[in-house]
Amino acid sequence: MAVKLPRGFRAGATRAGIKPSGKPDLALLVSGLPAAWAYAATQNRAAAPSIHRGRRLYAAGGALRAVVVNAGNANCATGEQGVRDDARMAELAALRLALRPEEVLTASTGVIGVPLPLEKVEAGLPQIPLEPLADPFAEAILTTDLVPKVAEAEVAGAKVVGIAKGSGMIHPNMATMLAFVVTDAKVPQEALRAAWRGIVDRTFNQVTVDGDTSTNDLALLMANGASGEVPLEALFQAVEAVAQELARKIARDGEGATKLLVVRVRGAATEEEARRAARTVAGSALWKSALYGNDPNWGRILAALGNSGARFDPFRVRIALQGIPLYAGGVLPFDRQAASAAMRAEEVEVLVDLEEGEGEGVAWGCDLTEGYVQINALYTT
Amino acid sequence: MAVKLPRGFRAGATRAGIKPSGKPDLALLVSGLPAAWAYAATQNRAAAPSIHRGRRLYAAGGALRAVVVNAGNANCATGEQGVRDDARMAELAALRLALRPEEVLTASTGVIGVPLPLEKVEAGLPQIPLEPLADPFAEAILTTDLVPKVAEAEVAGAKVVGIAKGSGMIHPNMATMLAFVVTDAKVPQEALRAAWRGIVDRTFNQVTVDGDTSTNDLALLMANGASGEVPLEALFQAVEAVAQELARKIARDGEGATKLLVVRVRGAATEEEARRAARTVAGSALWKSALYGNDPNWGRILAALGNSGARFDPFRVRIALQGIPLYAGGVLPFDRQAASAAMRAEEVEVLVDLEEGEGEGVAWGCDLTEGYVQINALYTT
Repeated sequence: MAVKLPRGFRAGATRAGIKPSGKPDLALLVSGLPAAWAYAATQNRAAAPSIHRGRRLYAAGGALRAVVVNAGNANCATGEQGVRDDARMAELAALRLALRPEEVLTASTGVIGVPLPLEKVEAGLPQIPLEPLADPFAEAILTTDLVPKVAEAEVAGAKVVGIAKGSGMIHPNMATMLAFVVTDAKVPQEALRAAWRGIVDRTFNQVTVDGDTSTNDLALLMANGASGEVPLEALFQAVEAVAQELARKIARDGEGATKLLVVRVRGAATEEEARRAARTVAGSALWKSALYGNDPNWGRILAALGNSGARFDPFRVRIALQGIPLYAGGVLPFDRQAASAAMRAEEVEVLVDLEEGEGEGVAWGCDLTEGYVQINALYTT
Repeated sequence: MAVKLPRGFRAGATRAGIKPSGKPDLALLVSGLPAAWAYAATQNRAAAPSIHRGRRLYAAGGALRAVVVNAGNANCATGEQGVRDDARMAELAALRLALRPEEVLTASTGVIGVPLPLEKVEAGLPQIPLEPLADPFAEAILTTDLVPKVAEAEVAGAKVVGIAKGSGMIHPNMATMLAFVVTDAKVPQEALRAAWRGIVDRTFNQVTVDGDTSTNDLALLMANGASGEVPLEALFQAVEAVAQELARKIARDGEGATKLLVVRVRGAATEEEARRAARTVAGSALWKSALYGNDPNWGRILAALGNSGARFDPFRVRIALQGIPLYAGGVLPFDRQAASAAMRAEEVEVLVDLEEGEGEGVAWGCDLTEGYVQINALYTT
């Protein structure tokens, strides 16, 4: 792909031998200038040491200079040893980059419960070439993902680049994946943090693959200011567009997925209810199975909406699939074969109008396939 | 099986032609005496007319005499027509049994969004032979279930018999299945209702197959007093044992399941947190896939616990699988092959100690298999 990073950012990766496959698995993302940053992390109570450390750095409020990521080992449920290993990974990266450890965020993804092979991290870090390119970093952070996920946008002379990994264990309540969005725009840290929360809620938190929230996931936004000030509203729109594109790519590349599911809900009593309703449909195992089988089974969509907690009147709600109205307070006559044929697509859209208010929301998911079961039954992650 | 109903109850079924398979699909359960009753129903907002009608009867507080159930058509999302059809089904059953319609509860299960073939109900009802046996009724209420589900207990000369159906769309928040428990013990209605709520929370609400809560499900307890008074504590224990056995049978017969999963949580801060933690593990798609693959992947159990909202310290929690300790605040050395071999069983038990308090809870589930996906991708339910 060759996606250039924003001004003042460098990244790179190496094969440290942490992934059994021998693929690149240790990566650095560095800003030449201290960067303002915003951060959202998993709510999982068994969160990994890297998450706890990230929260402390975030609360301390200092600028960020770099992120070190390893893939292949989550360094989670590894006891006090895991806490020490995570701190040491930050120290080693800081040493390599001539920074202070508290300027370096750590992230880990992979198998749970196996001690981090710190000697491989130590040997690998000096081998990482740093270039103004997103691609080697995007490749190295993957686990069961099939494709790297990069998105970019420009705004008023500044650039926004996002890099993510996803695949399984993808479900709301942040961040349920690793996502790094960087920009060379200059943004006060407070404004950045205020905007990021909402963007994450509308994008990464609206992706669901299997309802399991990971122990290690985070979404980071860094702004190093190398290209100066830009209108903040336009910048945050560009950041949201990048985050949304990453969210779509994560959903499409869900474990075993054959297609992307986009659920749009409007007419909800509140925006939060719209998002929740969209997520519940995107997360319904029954609807995801029907999606896989190209079965226009709107009854499962309705049942999922009924479970979501969003307020609506079943005698008024409307459901359309690929633009075909199926239900409007009651079953509509529709051509089942045509609706099924319309589901044979790379992307399938469900549109719901709850007819309650003005709230809108979107969620992204994928179909549930035998492939998902096989991937997760047969391999220890 | 031939399970005799408690004194004063009769039941029966017929082939009304509602199921495309031509199997029995219309059933009656009748008490010769007005019965005290307790009731829990689905929280799904798109609940079927039968659920709304049942709630009104329940609130009215009168005695119950009979239940009419059809399988093959949920009469849900069928508009105002569905409301009228449900009321008419009660009238027709009342006519057959010489009762008032408000003494008859309706229940429907099957395809959503297709009008109920009322003429088949009308023609079928007079054909139902009423006998003191649970079996024909248990057979007729099945949908994608593979086996009928009946359980019984005796207490101080009274009898308790439970009959249920389950299979897909099984998930907490009541009742997520049809369950009918009847006894000839004499119980004041208030005592019955107070006890049933807790029993349902500890049994039927702790079963999860796929995280989808159905629009039609209910759990009913009827006590007609034909065998007189018995010690209430002993009676409710017997009722709970029957409900628990039905819950286990529903989980074991989940769509595509090859084994039963029992998750026991103790040491939780509260009983509610224990039940929630147990449900979250039983409902984790990742853990259910690992269970299918005989992979002792305790990391997924820990991650699910972390998502449950139950309070615990990952450095203290303990996890055992089939009696083999895997984790105690950190990974334990264990023989992975032996643990995997122990998972090749009809029933697999996960035992978790959260080390926070005295709360205990159990949940029942099953493995996630290619069979689940195939059943739900290829057939409209």
